[in-house]
Amino acid sequence: MAGKVFFSVTMSLDGFMAPLDDGALEAMNQGRNDDPSLRRWMSQWGELQGWALKQRFMRENLQFGEGGETGPNDDFLRGVFDRTGSTVLGKRMFDGGEGGWPEDAPFHTPVFVVTHEVREPWKRLGGTTFHFVNDGIESALAQAREAAGDRDVRIGGGAETILQFLNAGLVDEFTVSLRPVFFGTGVPLFKGVDQTAVALDLARTEATPEVTHLTYTVRRR
Amino acid sequence: MAGKVFFSVTMSLDGFMAPLDDGALEAMNQGRNDDPSLRRWMSQWGELQGWALKQRFMRENLQFGEGGETGPNDDFLRGVFDRTGSTVLGKRMFDGGEGGWPEDAPFHTPVFVVTHEVREPWKRLGGTTFHFVNDGIESALAQAREAAGDRDVRIGGGAETILQFLNAGLVDEFTVSLRPVFFGTGVPLFKGVDQTAVALDLARTEATPEVTHLTYTVRRR
Repeated sequence: MAGKVFFSVTMSLDGFMAPLDDGALEAMNQGRNDDPSLRRWMSQWGELQGWALKQRFMRENLQFGEGGETGPNDDFLRGVFDRTGSTVLGKRMFDGGEGGWPEDAPFHTPVFVVTHEVREPWKRLGGTTFHFVNDGIESALAQAREAAGDRDVRIGGGAETILQFLNAGLVDEFTVSLRPVFFGTGVPLFKGVDQTAVALDLARTEATPEVTHLTYTVRRR
Repeated sequence: MAGKVFFSVTMSLDGFMAPLDDGALEAMNQGRNDDPSLRRWMSQWGELQGWALKQRFMRENLQFGEGGETGPNDDFLRGVFDRTGSTVLGKRMFDGGEGGWPEDAPFHTPVFVVTHEVREPWKRLGGTTFHFVNDGIESALAQAREAAGDRDVRIGGGAETILQFLNAGLVDEFTVSLRPVFFGTGVPLFKGVDQTAVALDLARTEATPEVTHLTYTVRRR
Protein backbone atom coordinates (compact mmCIF):
# COMPACT_ATOMS: atom_id res chain seq x y z
CA MET A 1 0.00 0.00 0.00
CA ALA A 2 1.48 3.29 -1.07
CA GLY A 3 1.62 6.15 1.40
CA LYS A 4 0.42 9.70 0.91
CA VAL A 5 2.28 12.77 -0.27
CA PHE A 6 1.91 15.66 2.15
CA PHE A 7 3.43 18.83 3.50
CA SER A 8 3.11 20.37 6.95
CA VAL A 9 4.20 23.95 7.58
CA THR A 10 3.64 26.80 9.99
CA MET A 11 2.17 29.96 8.45
CA SER A 12 1.62 33.48 9.75
CA LEU A 13 -1.96 34.77 9.58
CA ASP A 14 -0.94 36.97 6.66
CA GLY A 15 0.33 34.00 4.69
CA PHE A 16 4.09 33.79 5.19
CA MET A 17 5.99 30.61 6.01
CA ALA A 18 9.36 32.23 6.72
CA PRO A 19 10.87 35.68 7.22
CA LEU A 20 12.63 37.34 4.30
CA ASP A 21 16.33 36.54 4.36
CA ASP A 22 17.47 40.00 3.44
CA GLY A 23 21.12 39.34 4.35
CA ALA A 24 20.23 37.69 7.66
CA LEU A 25 21.71 34.27 6.90
CA GLU A 26 24.96 35.75 5.62
CA ALA A 27 25.23 37.75 8.85
CA MET A 28 24.57 34.56 10.82
CA ASN A 29 27.27 32.64 8.97
CA GLN A 30 29.73 35.48 9.60
CA GLY A 31 28.81 35.64 13.29
CA ARG A 32 27.53 39.24 13.08
CA ASN A 33 24.83 38.69 15.68
CA ASP A 34 24.00 42.40 16.01
CA ASP A 35 23.07 42.74 12.34
CA PRO A 36 19.58 44.33 12.24
CA SER A 37 18.24 42.06 9.52
CA LEU A 38 19.50 39.01 11.44
CA ARG A 39 17.80 40.25 14.60
CA ARG A 40 14.55 40.81 12.72
CA TRP A 41 14.85 37.39 11.07
CA MET A 42 15.44 35.67 14.41
CA SER A 43 12.55 37.49 16.03
CA GLN A 44 10.11 36.61 13.25
CA TRP A 45 11.39 33.04 13.08
CA GLY A 46 10.77 32.73 16.81
CA GLU A 47 7.23 34.09 16.46
CA LEU A 48 6.52 31.50 13.81
CA GLN A 49 8.35 28.45 15.20
CA GLY A 50 8.57 29.08 18.93
CA TRP A 51 5.50 26.95 19.62
CA ALA A 52 7.22 23.96 17.96
CA LEU A 53 10.73 24.42 19.32
CA LYS A 54 9.57 24.12 22.91
CA GLN A 55 7.76 20.80 22.46
CA ARG A 56 9.39 17.71 23.96
CA PHE A 57 9.53 15.93 20.62
CA MET A 58 11.37 18.79 18.91
CA ARG A 59 13.82 19.12 21.79
CA GLU A 60 14.62 15.43 21.49
CA ASN A 61 14.84 15.50 17.72
CA LEU A 62 17.07 18.58 17.59
CA GLN A 63 19.06 17.42 20.62
CA PHE A 64 18.25 20.52 22.64
CA GLY A 65 18.15 18.38 25.76
CA GLU A 66 15.60 17.09 28.24
CA GLY A 67 12.21 18.54 29.06
CA GLY A 68 9.77 20.40 26.87
CA GLU A 69 6.01 20.62 26.63
CA THR A 70 3.79 17.63 26.15
CA GLY A 71 0.19 17.74 24.96
CA PRO A 72 -1.58 18.22 21.64
CA ASN A 73 1.18 20.22 19.94
CA ASP A 74 3.81 17.69 20.97
CA ASP A 75 1.57 14.87 19.76
CA PHE A 76 1.02 16.71 16.49
CA LEU A 77 4.74 17.08 15.76
CA ARG A 78 5.49 13.49 16.75
CA GLY A 79 2.66 12.37 14.46
CA VAL A 80 4.15 14.23 11.49
CA PHE A 81 7.53 12.64 12.16
CA ASP A 82 6.15 9.13 12.65
CA ARG A 83 4.22 9.09 9.39
CA THR A 84 7.16 10.34 7.34
CA GLY A 85 9.03 7.61 5.45
CA SER A 86 11.03 9.95 3.22
CA THR A 87 11.41 13.65 2.56
CA VAL A 88 11.74 15.81 -0.56
CA LEU A 89 13.56 19.15 -0.36
CA GLY A 90 14.27 21.95 -2.79
CA LYS A 91 17.87 22.90 -3.42
CA ARG A 92 17.64 26.25 -1.67
CA MET A 93 16.22 24.70 1.48
CA PHE A 94 18.96 22.07 1.46
CA ASP A 95 21.65 24.72 0.95
CA GLY A 96 20.20 26.80 3.78
CA GLY A 97 20.11 23.85 6.16
CA GLU A 98 23.31 22.09 5.17
CA GLY A 99 25.50 24.24 7.39
CA GLY A 100 23.02 24.45 10.25
CA TRP A 101 21.67 20.92 10.76
CA PRO A 102 23.56 18.85 13.32
CA GLU A 103 25.55 15.87 12.12
CA ASP A 104 22.60 13.83 13.30
CA ALA A 105 20.32 15.71 10.88
CA PRO A 106 16.67 16.04 12.01
CA PHE A 107 15.08 14.00 9.20
CA HIS A 108 16.05 10.41 10.10
CA THR A 109 14.76 9.31 6.69
CA PRO A 110 16.09 9.26 3.16
CA VAL A 111 15.92 12.83 1.80
CA PHE A 112 15.65 13.58 -1.92
CA VAL A 113 17.00 16.99 -2.93
CA VAL A 114 15.75 18.39 -6.25
CA THR A 115 18.79 20.10 -7.71
CA HIS A 116 20.95 20.56 -10.78
CA GLU A 117 23.99 19.71 -8.71
CA VAL A 118 25.44 16.25 -9.42
CA ARG A 119 26.62 14.77 -6.15
CA GLU A 120 27.05 11.42 -4.45
CA PRO A 121 24.58 10.52 -1.67
CA TRP A 122 25.55 12.12 1.63
CA LYS A 123 25.00 9.85 4.61
CA ARG A 124 24.55 11.45 8.03
CA LEU A 125 24.14 9.96 11.49
CA GLY A 126 20.76 8.71 12.66
CA GLY A 127 19.31 7.47 9.38
CA THR A 128 19.37 10.62 7.25
CA THR A 129 20.85 10.18 3.79
CA PHE A 130 20.61 13.01 1.25
CA HIS A 131 20.16 11.90 -2.36
CA PHE A 132 20.60 14.49 -5.12
CA VAL A 133 18.05 14.18 -7.92
CA ASN A 134 18.79 15.92 -11.22
CA ASP A 135 15.81 14.97 -13.37
CA GLY A 136 12.89 16.88 -11.86
CA ILE A 137 10.18 16.66 -9.24
CA GLU A 138 8.34 13.61 -10.56
CA SER A 139 11.52 11.57 -10.51
CA ALA A 140 12.31 12.81 -6.99
CA LEU A 141 8.82 11.81 -5.90
CA ALA A 142 9.04 8.36 -7.47
CA GLN A 143 12.30 7.71 -5.62
CA ALA A 144 10.88 9.12 -2.41
CA ARG A 145 7.79 6.88 -2.66
CA GLU A 146 9.95 3.85 -3.20
CA ALA A 147 12.06 4.74 -0.18
CA ALA A 148 9.06 5.48 2.05
CA GLY A 149 7.45 2.07 1.58
CA ASP A 150 4.00 2.22 3.15
CA ARG A 151 4.78 5.37 5.08
CA ASP A 152 4.18 8.87 3.69
CA VAL A 153 6.37 11.22 1.66
CA ARG A 154 6.79 14.67 3.14
CA ILE A 155 7.49 17.61 0.86
CA GLY A 156 9.76 19.41 3.30
CA GLY A 157 10.07 22.78 1.54
CA GLY A 158 10.81 25.47 0.80
CA ALA A 159 7.75 27.32 -0.38
CA GLU A 160 8.69 27.19 -4.06
CA THR A 161 9.14 23.43 -4.00
CA ILE A 162 5.89 22.92 -2.09
CA LEU A 163 4.03 24.99 -4.67
CA GLN A 164 5.59 23.08 -7.57
CA PHE A 165 4.31 19.80 -6.16
CA LEU A 166 0.92 21.27 -5.22
CA ASN A 167 0.29 22.86 -8.61
CA ALA A 168 1.36 19.65 -10.37
CA GLY A 169 -1.40 17.81 -8.49
CA LEU A 170 1.14 15.62 -6.69
CA VAL A 171 0.11 16.47 -3.10
CA ASP A 172 -2.60 14.37 -1.41
CA GLU A 173 -3.01 16.43 1.74
CA PHE A 174 -1.37 19.12 3.80
CA THR A 175 -1.46 20.77 7.18
CA VAL A 176 -1.11 24.50 7.79
CA SER A 177 -0.28 25.28 11.42
CA LEU A 178 -1.63 28.80 11.56
CA ARG A 179 0.09 31.11 14.04
CA PRO A 180 -1.61 34.29 15.35
CA VAL A 181 1.13 36.60 14.07
CA PHE A 182 1.52 39.13 11.28
CA PHE A 183 4.76 39.35 9.29
CA GLY A 184 3.97 42.14 6.83
CA THR A 185 6.68 40.81 4.52
CA GLY A 186 8.21 37.38 4.22
CA VAL A 187 8.28 34.23 2.10
CA PRO A 188 4.66 33.65 1.03
CA LEU A 189 3.40 30.06 1.15
CA PHE A 190 0.61 30.10 -1.42
CA LYS A 191 1.54 32.96 -3.76
CA GLY A 192 1.36 31.54 -7.26
CA VAL A 193 -0.94 28.66 -6.35
CA ASP A 194 -2.85 27.45 -9.42
CA GLN A 195 -6.47 27.53 -8.28
CA THR A 196 -7.56 26.02 -11.59
CA ALA A 197 -5.50 22.90 -10.87
CA VAL A 198 -6.43 21.95 -7.33
CA ALA A 199 -9.37 22.21 -4.94
CA LEU A 200 -9.45 21.56 -1.21
CA ASP A 201 -11.56 19.89 1.43
CA LEU A 202 -11.07 20.71 5.07
CA ALA A 203 -10.33 17.36 6.69
CA ARG A 204 -9.83 18.48 10.28
CA THR A 205 -9.07 21.40 12.59
CA GLU A 206 -7.03 20.93 15.77
CA ALA A 207 -7.10 24.01 17.94
CA THR A 208 -4.65 24.98 20.67
CA PRO A 209 -4.20 28.46 22.12
CA GLU A 210 -0.90 28.98 20.30
CA VAL A 211 -1.58 27.50 16.90
CA THR A 212 -4.42 26.07 14.82
CA HIS A 213 -3.60 22.95 12.80
CA LEU A 214 -5.72 22.92 9.65
CA THR A 215 -5.54 19.77 7.55
CA TYR A 216 -6.79 19.78 3.96
CA THR A 217 -7.14 17.04 1.38
CA VAL A 218 -6.37 18.03 -2.19
CA ARG A 219 -8.45 17.18 -5.23
CA ARG A 220 -7.29 17.72 -8.81
CA ARG A 221 -9.71 19.91 -10.71
CA MET B 1 -19.91 50.15 29.37
CA ALA B 2 -18.47 50.72 25.93
CA GLY B 3 -18.59 47.92 23.41
CA LYS B 4 -15.75 46.48 21.36
CA VAL B 5 -14.58 47.36 17.88
CA PHE B 6 -14.34 44.28 15.67
CA PHE B 7 -14.45 42.94 12.17
CA SER B 8 -15.57 39.54 10.92
CA VAL B 9 -14.76 38.40 7.39
CA THR B 10 -14.42 35.27 5.32
CA MET B 11 -10.98 34.66 3.81
CA SER B 12 -9.64 32.16 1.29
CA LEU B 13 -6.73 30.03 2.48
CA ASP B 14 -4.41 32.11 0.31
CA GLY B 15 -5.50 35.32 2.00
CA PHE B 16 -8.18 36.93 -0.17
CA MET B 17 -11.47 38.32 1.13
CA ALA B 18 -13.09 38.97 -2.26
CA PRO B 19 -12.53 38.19 -5.93
CA LEU B 20 -10.95 40.86 -8.12
CA ASP B 21 -13.64 42.99 -9.73
CA ASP B 22 -11.97 43.16 -13.12
CA GLY B 23 -15.07 44.54 -14.86
CA ALA B 24 -17.42 42.01 -13.23
CA LEU B 25 -19.61 44.53 -11.39
CA GLU B 26 -20.02 46.72 -14.44
CA ALA B 27 -21.12 43.65 -16.39
CA MET B 28 -23.57 42.81 -13.59
CA ASN B 29 -25.05 46.29 -13.60
CA GLN B 30 -25.46 46.11 -17.37
CA GLY B 31 -27.06 42.68 -17.19
CA ARG B 32 -24.31 40.99 -19.22
CA ASN B 33 -24.57 37.73 -17.33
CA ASP B 34 -22.37 35.80 -19.75
CA ASP B 35 -19.41 38.09 -19.25
CA PRO B 36 -16.42 35.84 -18.39
CA SER B 37 -15.13 38.08 -15.60
CA LEU B 38 -18.60 38.22 -14.05
CA ARG B 39 -18.87 34.44 -14.21
CA ARG B 40 -15.46 34.05 -12.58
CA TRP B 41 -16.40 36.65 -9.96
CA MET B 42 -19.67 34.90 -9.14
CA SER B 43 -17.99 31.51 -8.95
CA GLN B 44 -15.27 32.75 -6.58
CA TRP B 45 -17.77 34.73 -4.52
CA GLY B 46 -19.84 31.58 -4.13
CA GLU B 47 -16.79 29.55 -3.04
CA LEU B 48 -16.07 32.16 -0.38
CA GLN B 49 -19.59 33.03 0.82
CA GLY B 50 -21.69 29.98 -0.07
CA TRP B 51 -21.37 28.56 3.45
CA ALA B 52 -22.93 31.76 4.86
CA LEU B 53 -25.63 32.34 2.27
CA LYS B 54 -27.28 29.01 2.98
CA GLN B 55 -27.64 29.55 6.73
CA ARG B 56 -31.09 30.22 8.08
CA PHE B 57 -30.10 33.55 9.61
CA MET B 58 -28.67 34.89 6.35
CA ARG B 59 -31.71 33.77 4.39
CA GLU B 60 -33.93 35.65 6.84
CA ASN B 61 -31.70 38.71 6.89
CA LEU B 62 -31.38 38.94 3.11
CA GLN B 63 -35.03 37.97 2.61
CA PHE B 64 -34.18 34.92 0.54
CA GLY B 65 -37.13 33.12 2.11
CA GLU B 66 -37.76 30.26 4.52
CA GLY B 67 -35.48 27.39 5.38
CA GLY B 68 -31.74 27.23 5.54
CA GLU B 69 -29.21 25.42 7.67
CA THR B 70 -29.13 25.64 11.42
CA GLY B 71 -26.19 24.70 13.62
CA PRO B 72 -22.83 26.23 14.52
CA ASN B 73 -22.42 28.34 11.37
CA ASP B 74 -25.93 29.73 11.69
CA ASP B 75 -25.30 30.48 15.37
CA PHE B 76 -22.03 32.16 14.47
CA LEU B 77 -23.64 34.53 11.95
CA ARG B 78 -26.53 35.34 14.25
CA GLY B 79 -24.03 36.08 17.02
CA VAL B 80 -22.14 38.56 14.83
CA PHE B 81 -25.39 40.30 13.99
CA ASP B 82 -26.66 40.37 17.58
CA ARG B 83 -23.51 41.96 19.01
CA THR B 84 -23.40 44.68 16.36
CA GLY B 85 -24.78 48.04 17.47
CA SER B 86 -23.42 50.05 14.56
CA THR B 87 -21.34 49.53 11.45
CA VAL B 88 -18.52 51.45 9.74
CA LEU B 89 -18.02 51.11 5.98
CA GLY B 90 -15.53 52.48 3.48
CA LYS B 91 -16.83 54.50 0.58
CA ARG B 92 -16.03 51.88 -2.03
CA MET B 93 -17.90 49.18 -0.14
CA PHE B 94 -20.89 51.48 0.25
CA ASP B 95 -20.84 52.38 -3.44
CA GLY B 96 -20.60 48.71 -4.38
CA GLY B 97 -23.54 47.78 -2.16
CA GLU B 98 -25.77 50.79 -2.66
CA GLY B 99 -27.32 49.44 -5.84
CA GLY B 100 -27.47 45.83 -4.66
CA TRP B 101 -28.78 45.92 -1.09
CA PRO B 102 -32.55 45.55 -0.78
CA GLU B 103 -34.54 48.54 0.45
CA ASP B 104 -34.55 46.78 3.80
CA ALA B 105 -30.71 46.87 3.84
CA PRO B 106 -29.05 43.99 5.72
CA PHE B 107 -27.42 46.06 8.50
CA HIS B 108 -30.41 47.05 10.68
CA THR B 109 -28.11 49.45 12.56
CA PRO B 110 -26.78 52.95 12.01
CA VAL B 111 -24.01 52.74 9.39
CA PHE B 112 -21.18 55.28 9.20
CA VAL B 113 -19.63 55.62 5.76
CA VAL B 114 -16.13 57.14 5.63
CA THR B 115 -16.19 59.30 2.51
CA HIS B 116 -15.38 62.68 1.01
CA GLU B 117 -18.92 62.90 -0.29
CA VAL B 118 -21.13 65.36 1.60
CA ARG B 119 -24.58 63.87 1.84
CA GLU B 120 -27.61 63.88 4.12
CA PRO B 121 -28.29 60.72 6.16
CA TRP B 122 -30.06 58.09 4.08
CA LYS B 123 -32.71 56.21 6.01
CA ARG B 124 -33.73 52.74 4.82
CA LEU B 125 -36.35 50.27 6.01
CA GLY B 126 -35.67 48.04 9.00
CA GLY B 127 -33.45 50.29 11.07
CA THR B 128 -30.55 50.94 8.68
CA THR B 129 -29.56 54.60 8.35
CA PHE B 130 -26.42 55.53 6.42
CA HIS B 131 -24.50 58.51 7.81
CA PHE B 132 -21.76 60.05 5.68
CA VAL B 133 -18.67 61.06 7.66
CA ASN B 134 -16.21 63.47 6.05
CA ASP B 135 -13.58 63.92 8.75
CA GLY B 136 -11.78 60.62 8.94
CA ILE B 137 -11.84 57.21 10.57
CA GLU B 138 -11.49 58.33 14.19
CA SER B 139 -14.51 60.59 13.86
CA ALA B 140 -16.49 57.82 12.18
CA LEU B 141 -15.55 55.49 15.01
CA ALA B 142 -16.51 57.99 17.71
CA GLN B 143 -19.94 58.43 16.13
CA ALA B 144 -20.32 54.69 15.67
CA ARG B 145 -19.43 54.03 19.33
CA GLU B 146 -21.97 56.59 20.44
CA ALA B 147 -24.64 55.01 18.27
CA ALA B 148 -23.80 51.46 19.38
CA GLY B 149 -24.30 52.13 23.08
CA ASP B 150 -23.11 49.08 24.95
CA ARG B 151 -23.15 46.90 21.86
CA ASP B 152 -20.14 46.51 19.55
CA VAL B 153 -19.00 48.46 16.51
CA ARG B 154 -18.39 46.36 13.42
CA ILE B 155 -15.90 47.53 10.81
CA GLY B 156 -17.83 46.18 7.86
CA GLY B 157 -15.22 46.60 5.12
CA GLY B 158 -13.81 46.69 2.55
CA ALA B 159 -10.31 45.40 3.06
CA GLU B 160 -8.69 48.83 2.82
CA THR B 161 -10.93 50.26 5.53
CA ILE B 162 -10.41 47.26 7.79
CA LEU B 163 -6.64 47.64 7.44
CA GLN B 164 -6.79 51.37 8.19
CA PHE B 165 -8.58 50.70 11.47
CA LEU B 166 -6.36 47.72 12.32
CA ASN B 167 -3.08 49.55 11.66
CA ALA B 168 -4.30 52.54 13.67
CA GLY B 169 -4.73 50.25 16.68
CA LEU B 170 -8.49 50.87 16.75
CA VAL B 171 -9.63 47.23 16.47
CA ASP B 172 -10.11 45.19 19.67
CA GLU B 173 -10.73 41.80 18.09
CA PHE B 174 -11.60 40.13 14.84
CA THR B 175 -12.75 36.85 13.36
CA VAL B 176 -11.43 35.31 10.17
CA SER B 177 -13.73 32.62 8.82
CA LEU B 178 -11.20 30.62 6.84
CA ARG B 179 -12.55 28.78 3.82
CA PRO B 180 -10.70 25.83 2.27
CA VAL B 181 -10.38 27.48 -1.14
CA PHE B 182 -7.61 29.02 -3.21
CA PHE B 183 -8.21 32.19 -5.23
CA GLY B 184 -4.79 32.79 -6.78
CA THR B 185 -5.71 36.44 -7.24
CA GLY B 186 -8.22 38.64 -5.47
CA VAL B 187 -8.57 41.39 -2.88
CA PRO B 188 -6.05 40.58 -0.13
CA LEU B 189 -7.21 41.02 3.46
CA PHE B 190 -3.94 41.59 5.29
CA LYS B 191 -1.62 42.97 2.61
CA GLY B 192 -0.10 46.12 4.08
CA VAL B 193 -0.74 45.17 7.70
CA ASP B 194 1.66 47.02 10.01
CA GLN B 195 3.18 44.22 12.09
CA THR B 196 5.10 46.77 14.16
CA ALA B 197 1.81 48.31 15.33
CA VAL B 198 -0.30 45.35 16.42
CA ALA B 199 0.14 41.89 17.86
CA LEU B 200 -2.41 39.10 18.18
CA ASP B 201 -3.62 36.51 20.62
CA LEU B 202 -5.71 33.61 19.43
CA ALA B 203 -8.89 33.83 21.51
CA ARG B 204 -10.80 30.86 20.09
CA THR B 205 -11.17 28.46 17.19
CA GLU B 206 -14.57 27.17 16.10
CA ALA B 207 -14.28 24.39 13.56
CA THR B 208 -16.90 23.17 11.13
CA PRO B 209 -16.27 21.08 8.01
CA GLU B 210 -16.89 24.05 5.71
CA VAL B 211 -15.16 26.89 7.50
CA THR B 212 -12.92 27.54 10.51
CA HIS B 213 -13.79 30.60 12.59
CA LEU B 214 -10.60 32.00 14.12
CA THR B 215 -11.05 34.82 16.62
CA TYR B 216 -8.11 36.99 17.61
CA THR B 217 -7.72 39.76 20.16
CA VAL B 218 -5.49 42.65 19.14
CA ARG B 219 -2.81 44.26 21.30
CA ARG B 220 -1.03 47.49 20.39
CA ARG B 221 2.72 46.99 20.24
